[in-house]
Amino acid sequence: MRWKCGCAYDGTDFFGWQSQAGGNTVQDFLEARLREIFKQPIRVHGSGRTDSGVHALGQVFHFDAAWSHPVWKLLRALQTGLPAGIQVTAVEAIDEGFHARFSAQGKQYVYRLYEGLAPPDAMRYTWSLGSRKLDVERMNAAAQRLIGTHDFTAFGAKRGDKSEDNPVKDLRRLELTRDGPRITLTTEASGYLYKMVRSLTGTLVAVGLGQLTPDAVESTLITRQRVQQVSTAPAKGLWLMQVFY
Amino acid sequence: MRWKCGCAYDGTDFFGWQSQAGGNTVQDFLEARLREIFKQPIRVHGSGRTDSGVHALGQVFHFDAAWSHPVWKLLRALQTGLPAGIQVTAVEAIDEGFHARFSAQGKQYVYRLYEGLAPPDAMRYTWSLGSRKLDVERMNAAAQRLIGTHDFTAFGAKRGDKSEDNPVKDLRRLELTRDGPRITLTTEASGYLYKMVRSLTGTLVAVGLGQLTPDAVESTLITRQRVQQVSTAPAKGLWLMQVFY
Repeated sequence: MRWKCGCAYDGTDFFGWQSQAGGNTVQDFLEARLREIFKQPIRVHGSGRTDSGVHALGQVFHFDAAWSHPVWKLLRALQTGLPAGIQVTAVEAIDEGFHARFSAQGKQYVYRLYEGLAPPDAMRYTWSLGSRKLDVERMNAAAQRLIGTHDFTAFGAKRGDKSEDNPVKDLRRLELTRDGPRITLTTEASGYLYKMVRSLTGTLVAVGLGQLTPDAVESTLITRQRVQQVSTAPAKGLWLMQVFY
Repeated sequence: MRWKCGCAYDGTDFFGWQSQAGGNTVQDFLEARLREIFKQPIRVHGSGRTDSGVHALGQVFHFDAAWSHPVWKLLRALQTGLPAGIQVTAVEAIDEGFHARFSAQGKQYVYRLYEGLAPPDAMRYTWSLGSRKLDVERMNAAAQRLIGTHDFTAFGAKRGDKSEDNPVKDLRRLELTRDGPRITLTTEASGYLYKMVRSLTGTLVAVGLGQLTPDAVESTLITRQRVQQVSTAPAKGLWLMQVFY
């Protein structure tokens, strides 16, 4: 039997999603808990990696295991015995044709920014910009230039292993909204290159600060050459919100 | 010269506000930072203690020191060199008649509750009630019975030292609001006994769960005898929001 699960985590204290030799990843903790529940090793398949420090409200994973009790008991079992920063939010039985990664049609991410110093309960989850002010309208103008199916090489980073993938992605949504000092970037795409959301955020922040023009952003896309003014936004502001199937 | 400062903190990782032998309190970190800035020991006077694990958005403290540079430079100095969970939000020169504790006319606290499992970015700051559901209207009916100037002995706790104070307090506001699964208790009073807000919260949660009647809450107040059904709400949901002068 295949089980599809929803998962949320505060990435601050974990070394990202993907299992690694040193442990302390979200996948490692989930697999350790499943091993306790099922008394055998269970492999967890996530919709994709998130980096060290990146958070999730809507990560999705699947695993295969036989379970003869009601589903709610499996959810309850998964809601205990995990570190406080990891929550399994949903479990459902699903057809074996489903694969958390390969069935995904797209993902939504949110990046949280704050003009000034974010209050203590937002600090771990937000990039505080200090005294710098953002021109959100200008950022949205630049964001519009990136919508569509493009080669996003300029907004990716090398992972340093063999997992580089096709740099052509369909960027369906990229927009910023302001609520007082809180500025939220929301993006939806068929997929993302390594560090792509944080690169897009860093680029648009440079635009919002007047360091880059919307035209320069479009040139970056077309020439596939990243400009030096752009830094990758810190992991702590990034949230995986939803995986679309 | 006397300086009045605003201060916010995530109380999760500190042993409360008040300086203690083992250190790791908010006051200890502020005094250590002031010592670095002024090259001499500086005593910090807070508006009052907050317990281990309690948070603050609007804590106030004062200290005395000579400073010949612009005020914003003092604020900037205080905004660096502190642990990530502590923020100095404001500094202003103030008359020497002002005292952070003795000049305070009242305080506002907020307690955050969540029906279900709070999302990971609220988890450190919220009491998650799991599958239990609260009747907020009933809680507000009980809260109304407590408004006014009363002896709140039944809702206090012994501190275990000589600092017990007058149990008569003027409770000006005590109300609950709901925003979906998020339930917020807001209270304003002339002052609070040790653990009083958490005791009031625990009492009203018992009412909201149907374990106590509003009448029983009023009896508790009048008889000054705490009933056994009531537990003190956990520290993590409590926020010192504002000190009134």
